Amino acid sequence: MDTAQTTASTLGSADQVTHNDMANAIRALAMDAVQKAQSGHPGMPMGMADVATVLFNRFLKFDPKRPDWPDRDRFVLSAGHGSMLLYSLLYLTGYEDMTLEELKNFRQLGSKTAGHPEYGEAGGIETTTGPLGQGFGNAVGMALAERILNARFGDHLVDHWTYVIASDGDLMEGISHEAASIAGHLGLGRLVVLFDDNGISIDGSTDLADSVDQVKRFEAYGWHALRVDGHDPAAVAEAIEAARASDKPSLIACKTTIGYGAPKLAGSEKSHGAPLGEDEIAGAREKLGWPHGPFEIPEPILHAWRQVGAAGGELSAAWDGRLRGAGDDIRTEFLRRQEGRLPEGLGDAISAVKRTLLEEKPKVATRKASQTVLEALVERIPEMIGGSADLSGSNNTKTSGHQVVTRGDYAGNYVHWGVREHGMAAAMNGLALHGGVIPYSGTFLIFSDYARPSIRLAAMNKLRTIHVMTHDSIGLGEDGPTHQPIEHLASLRAMPRLRVLRPADAVETAECWQVALESADAPSVLALSRQGLPALRAEGAEENYCRYGAYILVPAQDHRQVTLLASGSEVHVAVEARAMLAEEGISAAVVSMPSWDIFLDQPAHYRDEVLGTSALRVAIEAASGFGWERWTTLDGAFVGMKGFGASAPTGDLYKHFGITPEAVVSTVKDWL
Amino acid sequence: MDTAQTTASTLGSADQVTHNDMANAIRALAMDAVQKAQSGHPGMPMGMADVATVLFNRFLKFDPKRPDWPDRDRFVLSAGHGSMLLYSLLYLTGYEDMTLEELKNFRQLGSKTAGHPEYGEAGGIETTTGPLGQGFGNAVGMALAERILNARFGDHLVDHWTYVIASDGDLMEGISHEAASIAGHLGLGRLVVLFDDNGISIDGSTDLADSVDQVKRFEAYGWHALRVDGHDPAAVAEAIEAARASDKPSLIACKTTIGYGAPKLAGSEKSHGAPLGEDEIAGAREKLGWPHGPFEIPEPILHAWRQVGAAGGELSAAWDGRLRGAGDDIRTEFLRRQEGRLPEGLGDAISAVKRTLLEEKPKVATRKASQTVLEALVERIPEMIGGSADLSGSNNTKTSGHQVVTRGDYAGNYVHWGVREHGMAAAMNGLALHGGVIPYSGTFLIFSDYARPSIRLAAMNKLRTIHVMTHDSIGLGEDGPTHQPIEHLASLRAMPRLRVLRPADAVETAECWQVALESADAPSVLALSRQGLPALRAEGAEENYCRYGAYILVPAQDHRQVTLLASGSEVHVAVEARAMLAEEGISAAVVSMPSWDIFLDQPAHYRDEVLGTSALRVAIEAASGFGWERWTTLDGAFVGMKGFGASAPTGDLYKHFGITPEAVVSTVKDWL
Repeated sequence: MDTAQTTASTLGSADQVTHNDMANAIRALAMDAVQKAQSGHPGMPMGMADVATVLFNRFLKFDPKRPDWPDRDRFVLSAGHGSMLLYSLLYLTGYEDMTLEELKNFRQLGSKTAGHPEYGEAGGIETTTGPLGQGFGNAVGMALAERILNARFGDHLVDHWTYVIASDGDLMEGISHEAASIAGHLGLGRLVVLFDDNGISIDGSTDLADSVDQVKRFEAYGWHALRVDGHDPAAVAEAIEAARASDKPSLIACKTTIGYGAPKLAGSEKSHGAPLGEDEIAGAREKLGWPHGPFEIPEPILHAWRQVGAAGGELSAAWDGRLRGAGDDIRTEFLRRQEGRLPEGLGDAISAVKRTLLEEKPKVATRKASQTVLEALVERIPEMIGGSADLSGSNNTKTSGHQVVTRGDYAGNYVHWGVREHGMAAAMNGLALHGGVIPYSGTFLIFSDYARPSIRLAAMNKLRTIHVMTHDSIGLGEDGPTHQPIEHLASLRAMPRLRVLRPADAVETAECWQVALESADAPSVLALSRQGLPALRAEGAEENYCRYGAYILVPAQDHRQVTLLASGSEVHVAVEARAMLAEEGISAAVVSMPSWDIFLDQPAHYRDEVLGTSALRVAIEAASGFGWERWTTLDGAFVGMKGFGASAPTGDLYKHFGITPEAVVSTVKDWL
Repeated sequence: MDTAQTTASTLGSADQVTHNDMANAIRALAMDAVQKAQSGHPGMPMGMADVATVLFNRFLKFDPKRPDWPDRDRFVLSAGHGSMLLYSLLYLTGYEDMTLEELKNFRQLGSKTAGHPEYGEAGGIETTTGPLGQGFGNAVGMALAERILNARFGDHLVDHWTYVIASDGDLMEGISHEAASIAGHLGLGRLVVLFDDNGISIDGSTDLADSVDQVKRFEAYGWHALRVDGHDPAAVAEAIEAARASDKPSLIACKTTIGYGAPKLAGSEKSHGAPLGEDEIAGAREKLGWPHGPFEIPEPILHAWRQVGAAGGELSAAWDGRLRGAGDDIRTEFLRRQEGRLPEGLGDAISAVKRTLLEEKPKVATRKASQTVLEALVERIPEMIGGSADLSGSNNTKTSGHQVVTRGDYAGNYVHWGVREHGMAAAMNGLALHGGVIPYSGTFLIFSDYARPSIRLAAMNKLRTIHVMTHDSIGLGEDGPTHQPIEHLASLRAMPRLRVLRPADAVETAECWQVALESADAPSVLALSRQGLPALRAEGAEENYCRYGAYILVPAQDHRQVTLLASGSEVHVAVEARAMLAEEGISAAVVSMPSWDIFLDQPAHYRDEVLGTSALRVAIEAASGFGWERWTTLDGAFVGMKGFGASAPTGDLYKHFGITPEAVVSTVKDWL
C-alpha cells in the first residue's frame, strides 16, 4: 500500500503525471462502474492496475484509432471478470467507441461494456473471455498465428507480441495445462502471460484449494517463468523485458493485492465479485490519493493516457508504408488473408473433386473422402492450418502436401496438437481471432465434449473454425460405448450458430467442406464416418445441394406416402429401405439432411416440399433421437439409438441396435 | 529387450516361474486377443506387462473371489485402450467371470471384454476408461474416498491404496492437471500413478507434440515423482516402495518400450492400435521365449498367477473378522454406506422441509432453497460429501454443519475443489465408484460443458453423483452470455440416463433433491436459479410430485384449451400468463416439468392427461427450444431463447428476449 499512499495528485501537466496517477485512474473507473452497475468485479482491475499500466505504457504496440491494425500486439484479458480493467484502458487510451458513457452503462442492456468482454462489441476487445482458461488458450493460438504469418510475410509486416492477464482460476483450469504445454513445445517466445498472483479465489484464500508452484510448473512446460512484485512498476517492467529477451513463452507471476487501495476489503475475496460500497470506495479514494469524483479523470491524467494511445499511430503509419513497399502481390495476398476472403476458384475446385467422385463412385468413409477434398483444398488455400489431437491418421486431416509446424520453424501448415482437444479448440479460436489463417483440426466426435466450451466461444465470437470430427457413431465399432457418440449430434445441433454438417457420402463431404469454408462467421463441425459408405449422389457436380441443409436425394417413385429422413452414414440405410418399401408398393422419398441449422433457415415452402406435408416421416440416425421431433411427428417415428452403444464390429452393432433397412421398413409399416 | 531374450521357459513348478514368464503371459494374451478380434491395442499391455506384474505380484491387495471387498486396493487402468492388460490380469489371477472364452471374444458383442474396460461388465474393472484422463481423475476421487472413510472407520477397516496406469495421453489432457493439483493439495499419499512413459503416441513419437518434463510438473503439484526403467522389475518394485513410503501422491514415470517383444514394431506407434499380424506375433513369441500357442498359458505359469490371486483371500477373510469385531453398530453403518443404502427417514426429512416451505411460502432462488434442503440432509446423511468448484457461496452448496476436508484431516464432508469443474466431476465419479460416500458438488450450469465428459461417464457407469448447477439461465443477469446457459438443458437432456432436474420453487427443489438421492444408479443435474422465484406449490408435503417428471401445477379453470409447459424459473411466468389468459376467457392449465426423462418413463395415459391431448401446447423456457417439439407441436409454439444471451439486469433480459407472461399470452392467441 505504501506507494499508493504517497501518491500526490497535484497535477500540472501530463509530464508530471505519475505511474500511480495513471494506475489509479483504472482503479477509480473500475470501482465506480461496478458501484453504479451494482454488479461486477472491482478487485482484479484494482489489483492489476499497476501491471496493466506498465504494459500499456511501455510495451504494448497498439493504435486506438485502428483496432484492426494487423501488426498490433494482442492483449488478452483471460481473467474476463476483470472486464473493467480492459474497458478503462480502452477508454483512457482513446478507443473511440469506448466512451465514458459506455463505462457508466457497464453491464446494462445494449452497452458495449458487458459483464465479461465480448469480442466484436468494441475495438480493442481481442476475444470474448470469462469462462476461465479460454483467453489463455486463445492467446496461444494468436501467438502461433503471429509466427506462422511471420514465416510467410517477414518481420517487416508481422512482428508483434501476445500479452495475457490470467488469474488463479485460469491456471487451475485444465485447459491451461493443454495450452501451456502446446506453447512450450512450439517455443512461442512471443507469448507473455502476466499471472495475477493475488492468492484469492471466490471461496477465499487460494490455499483452500491450491498449492501448485506455478513457476516450477511452467518451467516444466519449457517456459521462462519468474516471480515479481506486481505493485512495483520497475520490477514489472524489468520482468517484461526479460520475458521479451527469452526465446520461450513467459509466465510472470505478479504478486498483487486484490482490491488494492480498498481500506477494508483489499486482500479479501470480498472485493472480488461485488461492488465495494460507497463507504469503502470513499476510503479507497482517500487511501489512493484520488480525490476526484466518480467517473472523473483529471485532464492531465487523461492526456497522459491518450498520449500513450497516440504513440501507436506513428507505428501503424510506418507499417502501412512497409506494406505499400512490399509490392502489389504481397500486399494483395496479405490483405486477402487478413480479411478472411477465400481465394478465387474454391467452387471450381470443389466441383472438380465432385466430378471425379461422381464418376468413380467410391465406397469410402466420409473421413477418407474429407482427406481427398483436403488434398485439393490445402494447396489452393494456403491460409488453411490443419491439425489433429493426435489422431491424424484416423481423422485423415493430414494431406501429402502438409508441412508440420515445429518449434523454430513456423513455415508449415499442420500442427500436431497432442491429446489436447480443449487446448486445440481454444488455440484454433485464437488463430481465427488473430486473422490471416483458417484453422481446421480433427478429433473423434465423442471428444467434442472435451472441446465444447471453446466451440461455444467460437460460435459466440462468430469464428470460422472447422472441426473435423470423425468416428461419428456406433459405426466406429469395437472401440465401444466410451468412444461412440450418441447425444453429441443433438447437443451440438442445440448450440446457437454452430454449423453441424454430417455428409452422407463423398460428394456431400466435398459440399460440406465448401459450406464450412464459406461460413465466414460461424464455426463448423464436420461429423464424418469411420466406416465406408456407398456413393449415393448421382448428380450435382456444379450445384452444392448441402447448401440447402436438406434435400430430396431420391424422390418417391409415385405419390409420396413416406419421407425417410436421415443424415450421414444412415442415408444409405434409408435408400435401401426405400427400395424394399417400393417392392411392397409403398412409395417413399429419401431426404438427406446434412445440416439442420441450414435447413431451418430455408423458406417454409422449400422445407415443406422436402419434408412432404402429408407424408409419414420417419427419421433414421445412429444417434439419440433427441430433437428429431422437430422434423418428424409428435411422437417421433425414429429409428436410432435409445441409450449408450456397445463394443462390437460395426455390422453387428447396426443389427443389434436395429438400425437397418428392415427395421425402417417395419417401422414404416407400423405407422402407415 | 535383453531380459526378455534370456527368459527360459522350461518350467517345472510354479516356484520356478519367473517374472518374465508371468509378464509374457500378459503379452501373449494381449497379442492373441487383438489378433483374433482383428482390432485393439497390443502395444500398451506388452509395454506395461512388467510393471503390472510387479504391481499385482508384490503390492496390490485384492481377492479375485470378492471383487467388491470394500478394503481392496483400487487398480485403475486410465489408459483404457490397453484393456487387454486388465483382462489378462483378471483372467490370470482368477476372477471368475473373466474366462479364457471372454478373452477370445475380445471386442465382440455381448462379451465382458469391451474395447475399453466397462465398469459393471466384470469384477475387477473398477471404472470405465478410454476417454483419456478420466481414469486418472477417478483415481483421485477413490484415493480421497479411502481417506474420508478411514477418518470415520479407522485403519482396521479402511486401509488401502489406489494404483493407476496412465499414458502420455492421460497426462496431456487438461483433466490430469486438475486432478493432479487436487491430489497434491489434499496430500493423497495413497495414490500411486504408474506412468507408461513409452514416448509414443498415435501420431508418432511424443516429441511431435510434447516436451513436458512430467517429473518436474508433478513435483510442482506437490507430488513425489521419479523415473524408473519400466522393464526392470526390481527397480519398479523399489519405486513403488518409495512411493508408499512418501506421504505425497506419487508419479512413477516408467520408461518402457511400446509393443515390447515385437521384433519389428516394438517402439513404434504401429504397435499401438492395430493387430500386430501373424508374422510379427510369431516373431514376438520367439523373441520373448514364449513357444506356446495362442491363448495357451502353461499350467505352472497360470498356477503362479492364481497363487497371487489366492493370497488375497486370506487378507479379505481377516478383514471380515475385523468388521465382525467392530461391533454391530459400526458394521451395520459401514455396510449401509458401502452398499449405497440411504439412511431411513429421508422421506420424512424432505416432508418436514416441505411443510415449512408450504407454510412460509418464501420467494427465494432455488439455489438458496437447495441450501435449506441441504441443511436438513447433510447431517442426516453423513456419507454425503459436498463441494464446489470455487463457487460455494454462489452455488449455496455449503451448510452450517459442513467441515472442510483438508490435507491430513479427512474427517470433513466438504471439498473446496478449486476452479476445476472437470477434475471435480471425475473425482466425484471416483468417490461414487469407491463407495461409502455420496458426492455432490456445485458449479454454474454453463460450466457443465467443462465437466461434460465426466458426467457422461457417470451416466455410463450408473453412478449417483449429484451436480448442483446454479445460475441456470439468462436469469443470472449481468455476467452476460459467456455465463448464460442456452443450449445446456437440451444437451444434458439428450444424454442417456442423466437425470436433469429443474425445480420451479423451493418445494420442488426439496422434491428434486429427494429424486436425485434416490436415483442410486444415475447421475443428476439440479439446474437451479440465481434469481428469487415465488412459491408456486400450495400442497403436496407428503407426496413427491417431481417423481412424475411433470404434473399439472394449476389446472385449467374450465375445459382446457391450452397447456402451458414450463420448467424452473419460467413456471411462474406460465402461472401469470394463465391468469391473464383467464381474464380473456381462455382456459389454460400450467404443467411444471422438472424432469423430461422421468416424465418420459411415465405411462402414456398419465403423459396424455398432463399434456392435454386436444389442448394447444405452448412451452416456456429461458433456454434453447431445441427438443421441446417432443412435448409441444410439430412446429413448436415455444417462448424462449433463439440465440445467445446478453449482459444486463435479469428483469431487462426477460423483457428483451420476450420471455414474459404477455409474450406467452400473445403466442397463445396467435396459435388458438
